[in-house]
Amino acid sequence: MRFASFIDGQRAGYGIVLAGDHLLDLTAAGKTAAQPLPADLAGFIAAGAPALEIARQLADRADQASLRSIASVRLVAPIPRPAKNVFCIGRNYLDHVAEGYRARGTETKVPEVPQIFTKPPTAVIGPDEPFALDAAVSAKIDYEVELALIIGKAGRDIPAERAWDHIFGFTILNDITARDLQRRHEQWFKGKGLDRSCPMGPVVVTRDEIADPTEFELSLTVNGEARQRAKVGQMIFPIPTIIASLSAGLTLEPGDIIATGTPSGVGYAMDPPRYLAPGDHVVCTISGIGRLATPITAYERT
Amino acid sequence: MRFASFIDGQRAGYGIVLAGDHLLDLTAAGKTAAQPLPADLAGFIAAGAPALEIARQLADRADQASLRSIASVRLVAPIPRPAKNVFCIGRNYLDHVAEGYRARGTETKVPEVPQIFTKPPTAVIGPDEPFALDAAVSAKIDYEVELALIIGKAGRDIPAERAWDHIFGFTILNDITARDLQRRHEQWFKGKGLDRSCPMGPVVVTRDEIADPTEFELSLTVNGEARQRAKVGQMIFPIPTIIASLSAGLTLEPGDIIATGTPSGVGYAMDPPRYLAPGDHVVCTISGIGRLATPITAYERT
Repeated sequence: MRFASFIDGQRAGYGIVLAGDHLLDLTAAGKTAAQPLPADLAGFIAAGAPALEIARQLADRADQASLRSIASVRLVAPIPRPAKNVFCIGRNYLDHVAEGYRARGTETKVPEVPQIFTKPPTAVIGPDEPFALDAAVSAKIDYEVELALIIGKAGRDIPAERAWDHIFGFTILNDITARDLQRRHEQWFKGKGLDRSCPMGPVVVTRDEIADPTEFELSLTVNGEARQRAKVGQMIFPIPTIIASLSAGLTLEPGDIIATGTPSGVGYAMDPPRYLAPGDHVVCTISGIGRLATPITAYERT
Repeated sequence: MRFASFIDGQRAGYGIVLAGDHLLDLTAAGKTAAQPLPADLAGFIAAGAPALEIARQLADRADQASLRSIASVRLVAPIPRPAKNVFCIGRNYLDHVAEGYRARGTETKVPEVPQIFTKPPTAVIGPDEPFALDAAVSAKIDYEVELALIIGKAGRDIPAERAWDHIFGFTILNDITARDLQRRHEQWFKGKGLDRSCPMGPVVVTRDEIADPTEFELSLTVNGEARQRAKVGQMIFPIPTIIASLSAGLTLEPGDIIATGTPSGVGYAMDPPRYLAPGDHVVCTISGIGRLATPITAYERT
């Protein structure tokens, strides 16, 4: 199934995206279900298999009259306000690692274990929401298309061979990065944590819909020009390794979000570097999930 | 005022700690106040000056009969489940920076800007709650006593000269660190993010109680042996600089927690290094705030 969160006038809701861009509003339908559904998608994910089963039954029973057009609502990030920072994996595609070292004129060193940093909940925005570029804060704003995992089942010390059991689904994430702050502050959080620097969505596709996640193809364009393209199978640390490494001694919880790294083609590694500017339009695409657009605007100081 | 959160049987609450270890239970008293108070300390902090004023009036009116002994409840972390990761500043005391480089045999390099990383909400525990050491995850568990700031008022691009307006109060935080993971993963999150690695408390002391925060004296003992001792005034980046740097392009929110770095005396920089082991008892103290004890136990794999 494909889940999305939305705003309908003043009301926040979530639902299932069905063929033909129909939306089954679970916030509304869930109230009259035999067992009521949680009020938001994060709560739904935490409710586990029983909630998924109710949603499946509602989808099977849905007639035209109970559906609405997805165009009638505004999609937001699937989890608009995560309950903790988004976990992110750095340097996870060999060609991206190589372009980074090349840009800095040093020899390529492939990481031996996943490099992990975070982005705060205040960074999360949804599809088509602008990233407001504040030139007083950073002069080097860059994009990074990434596959994001949504955790469905809590766990600690999760062995790689059981990692898939803990994943609810997949979405698209753009890890917008201030390259100057990332370098200057050494630890990456500052360059990765700016307001609105974590566009996510438009939908979460459940694990059972995806035959082979290594076949996901990621791509990113700026103003229509191709910049990034790769398959998830090219990762240095595949998804089960990421889950095992991250959860060693650290409990993952339902609704946790893990961005799995970006392939080559980022702006800072181009020669000369090409950073984002107000007026730019960034589009991330992942095959089987969809398209996540982010217009770049100028930040207006109030 | 001094605020604490607690568990009383099955009930979670918060209150004001008064002289003589008396506790005014605001969760109970707040229900009958002219204006009801929020249900937890994070909500109370977000409610701002009006809530503080109600609390002050309740404290002024409180008679012996309405107070209870602090020993009758179990104190927990002031904000047991933060709404995002704890912000942390690395390498913020010159002597600690120097001991780190000395331990690794390289020349001391003083950071030019604050180095920022995070600890997840799953790491937070309260006073006297054990850190369970899992030897299968890390063989090099270390302590770090730190002054933590609690944000009271939201803000972005906060100038240093207005930083104090955004601080609700202060507490003690032990930034328990897995040194082997910190090094191996390069980005510090993995070594800083283990379950239960963020003891906090016992109380939050409001800003107005503290004449000069640079006079706070931090100290830490292991099994009664002095290991760390410093004044907050020795910080490389003082509190207003931290707030200004962190909030550049990033919105801080009420209830946000910022750990401000640790002075010298950590275990990994001793010669030979001395890491924590099950049975150890770590006590952090900050003058004017109190004492935060953390017993080290052995993790039991279930």
